[in-house]
Amino acid sequence: MTRAVEIVDEYGQRRTLRIPAERPLTVYVDKRELITLMTLGAHPEWLVLGYLRNQRLIQSVHEIESITVDWDVGAAAVRTRHGLADIEDRTARRVVTTGCGQGSVFGGLMDEVERIRLNPDARLRQSELYGILRVIREQDSVYKQAGSVHGCALFRGDELLLFVEDVGRHNAVDTIAGWMALQGEDVARGDDKVFYTTGRLTSEMIIKSAQMGVPIVVSRSGTTQMGLEVAERLGLCAIGRATHTRFLCYTHAHRLVWDTPPP
Amino acid sequence: MTRAVEIVDEYGQRRTLRIPAERPLTVYVDKRELITLMTLGAHPEWLVLGYLRNQRLIQSVHEIESITVDWDVGAAAVRTRHGLADIEDRTARRVVTTGCGQGSVFGGLMDEVERIRLNPDARLRQSELYGILRVIREQDSVYKQAGSVHGCALFRGDELLLFVEDVGRHNAVDTIAGWMALQGEDVARGDDKVFYTTGRLTSEMIIKSAQMGVPIVVSRSGTTQMGLEVAERLGLCAIGRATHTRFLCYTHAHRLVWDTPPP
Repeated sequence: MTRAVEIVDEYGQRRTLRIPAERPLTVYVDKRELITLMTLGAHPEWLVLGYLRNQRLIQSVHEIESITVDWDVGAAAVRTRHGLADIEDRTARRVVTTGCGQGSVFGGLMDEVERIRLNPDARLRQSELYGILRVIREQDSVYKQAGSVHGCALFRGDELLLFVEDVGRHNAVDTIAGWMALQGEDVARGDDKVFYTTGRLTSEMIIKSAQMGVPIVVSRSGTTQMGLEVAERLGLCAIGRATHTRFLCYTHAHRLVWDTPPP
Repeated sequence: MTRAVEIVDEYGQRRTLRIPAERPLTVYVDKRELITLMTLGAHPEWLVLGYLRNQRLIQSVHEIESITVDWDVGAAAVRTRHGLADIEDRTARRVVTTGCGQGSVFGGLMDEVERIRLNPDARLRQSELYGILRVIREQDSVYKQAGSVHGCALFRGDELLLFVEDVGRHNAVDTIAGWMALQGEDVARGDDKVFYTTGRLTSEMIIKSAQMGVPIVVSRSGTTQMGLEVAERLGLCAIGRATHTRFLCYTHAHRLVWDTPPP
């Protein structure tokens, strides 16, 4: 997932270092071209499945018959059982996301926010939060090797269930969503899970976490007004600037259990 | 462009801090809804103009009669002189960008790369590069105040022409492109300019710089394989990890003049 390249440093010296090696993957749904994703390609099937789910183009994994990835042509062929209802309309409108300022979230995503109900009893102990940050720190990662990628992870308490990296934080979270959809009920339901991301807590990141039913989100980065507003409205606990023993809880701090004051 | 919010820190203490306050801006072209951009909104007209240019929906600013922004309804109304040719087709395909993994670059952008010719004689002195990094460091910025935003800047040598911040690095560069399009020939042409961005040098960042005719790009962040491939092909000098006296030159190092070895 990385490639060695030769660069010239500030001393004019040639050096070899590694950079992330993403590839384009064009998604076809029932032979109709939908979108091209740039991805490290670690788990392309999960990515495509999660993308379709998070864009609400499918409600359930059972609508999918098969996803076949062919890297030789950079294509992911999705076969649905009964076709996707009014996919034309639902992919027509682009709402642009704050992540890169111009991401692509198909229309109607915000409309769904109102309908989402997150588990009101979900809590996270400060000790578990510190456990999560320790696990992330100790992860062997493309980021440590090459930088320039985002990481996302799904936790139950401080137990790591899945860690995914990709060039874009959206691909990483979609990959997690796709993986969750293929697991048993205890993993597929997010209400006792914690979602970690290295990326900013923008509105669509918060929305995607909520769509997975995950009521607590932890980020290494900060948030923006719209991310905060959506988290506030959803009852989602948004924690940012989280490294080592430091963090900022932006919303719904009642979900945090203060059992471990930092040294 | 920032808003004060109350958070709870790792000691359980309430604190007030500032976060970026982005707003949605829906772009209508001749009354047809095109896209919704999330933006800090510092220069909405330049952003919209630059967006249309960088998406190659217009070739020249003269195709635009007026851009009217109304924040009460979060709308930017673009009136063209003669309409935009086959806008339906040209906005139909989405190619997704590495910036957030799922940005939105309308089809055909990559096709243009081959046709771009950058000034082969453009050079940047190491002393000018260090000057650029000093100017950026000393900029009063939303980033210093609230974090979670990207900054872009246009330089001639180490002379700052324009500095723009937004929640997304694409909005920032598009705003610069829009501003350039409104300037006289000496500023509008990019061939003696340097483009700075805090964001990663992804393929579409490189492409946008090249579309502005700017042959040298400096970033605080790194690059990815596709960004590097495009820069290589375009003859664009891509410099990353640039802070203080440190930097990595990924491509076309012959454009750098090594006049100031770091201390």
